Amino acid sequence: MIVIGERINGMFKKVREAIQNKDAAFIRDLAASQVKAGASILDINVGTASTDPESDMVWLVNAVQAEVGVPLSIDSARHEPLEAGLAAVKGKRVLNSTTGKETDLAKLLPMAKKYDASVIALTIDEDGVPSTVDKRVEIAAKILAAAMDQGIAVDELYIDPITLPVNCAQDQPERVFAAITQFRMLSDPPPHTTIGLSNISQRLKEHRLLNRTFLIMCMAHGLDSAIVDPLDEELMKAVITAEMLMNKFIYADSFLEASRK
Amino acid sequence: MIVIGERINGMFKKVREAIQNKDAAFIRDLAASQVKAGASILDINVGTASTDPESDMVWLVNAVQAEVGVPLSIDSARHEPLEAGLAAVKGKRVLNSTTGKETDLAKLLPMAKKYDASVIALTIDEDGVPSTVDKRVEIAAKILAAAMDQGIAVDELYIDPITLPVNCAQDQPERVFAAITQFRMLSDPPPHTTIGLSNISQRLKEHRLLNRTFLIMCMAHGLDSAIVDPLDEELMKAVITAEMLMNKFIYADSFLEASRK
Repeated sequence: MIVIGERINGMFKKVREAIQNKDAAFIRDLAASQVKAGASILDINVGTASTDPESDMVWLVNAVQAEVGVPLSIDSARHEPLEAGLAAVKGKRVLNSTTGKETDLAKLLPMAKKYDASVIALTIDEDGVPSTVDKRVEIAAKILAAAMDQGIAVDELYIDPITLPVNCAQDQPERVFAAITQFRMLSDPPPHTTIGLSNISQRLKEHRLLNRTFLIMCMAHGLDSAIVDPLDEELMKAVITAEMLMNKFIYADSFLEASRK
Repeated sequence: MIVIGERINGMFKKVREAIQNKDAAFIRDLAASQVKAGASILDINVGTASTDPESDMVWLVNAVQAEVGVPLSIDSARHEPLEAGLAAVKGKRVLNSTTGKETDLAKLLPMAKKYDASVIALTIDEDGVPSTVDKRVEIAAKILAAAMDQGIAVDELYIDPITLPVNCAQDQPERVFAAITQFRMLSDPPPHTTIGLSNISQRLKEHRLLNRTFLIMCMAHGLDSAIVDPLDEELMKAVITAEMLMNKFIYADSFLEASRK
């Protein structure tokens, strides 16, 4: 499981304040603690409150890579902060995200190629978020073909079927499971699949229980990556256990500790 | 999810002592607490230490049905205690279990029909426990056909793909997932599927974490029944959450409490 740490995001009040105050020590700690907890990629998002998202993104990237050496996922809905962030990363990088919209694919896939970045791609198109499995697969296939046209390898692509809050769209989780299964049949080798986990439970009472249960169910359907809070210990234990049960590493009674090394 | 409570089993020391001392109050409490925690069927097993399994089974059944009205699953590897238990149950009953062996099918399916009992059937045959998915499906199909020949309705059948301890057979959990998916394609409507959950983690350090993670993964593949410890609160919370995510009942912020009513 490729765990993408979600915590360095300006939507969180303390991160927003750290960006405003240029408190690099706070950001470095948050980077180090997520990597220690098992994140193999860190997501970097300045949040919507930033008045200068390009320079804030570059500052965040530099603060993080002063502390940790993992790949960084540059996360913005706007093209300029995406490019500024990708340019600032010294090692491996991920563009987060493109959609299946023609305008995004035409602009962002060449940008990913230019920076040798992996790509997280959301199955959204000009008609918005699809409610059916078939439409998700159709958009995924379009994204995959466009990426191949740009010379982006299939294993650099992370396709996200889009998770909606379960209290708003309770028929959607099962469609996400089916979409994950079908995305993996689109090519051989298959693209990675990913989800933004916290969407399933935003502002809901049992959000941690919902998150870990939903994630395990997605993993059972073949999900191999997710943007999550790696500091949620019960979540990470469940992820490790699910991976062991899928025979990804050898059982030992101390498998939780062993897998963290 | 049809939760079959596993606790009234002579393999547990306190239950064994209660059987020996004919301590009906202890058994009644254990029956009531499992039903309160969400069990919809109670498994009844005298254990291997019993010197008179037929009369112990009848005593246990009577102790339990003096307290609760749920269906009872009469659990024995021997035919005589099975029949004695089935005969003693006043309401709905389950025969636990037949295998796919010719001798078991020939004796136990007519017994189930005689007592109008549902049947738990293990995909074991004369060659033992199968290691492949295909062999499990082959035995399941044989059991299904034999049950139909006896006039047992497909929705009275609970097929168990056999779970081995993960520390002994780490490639088996994924085969169990695949077998569950395939059992459900054997007929329309499909047979129920079930597992004896605790097998996955017997005597292992992280047994509760393993149990609930494995169960959620099985549910994601369509498992609709399991023999479990309903007094394991985290397990039951995970089961309720998985069911809600599969849209089996309407979301409310208090879905855990609501589902227990």
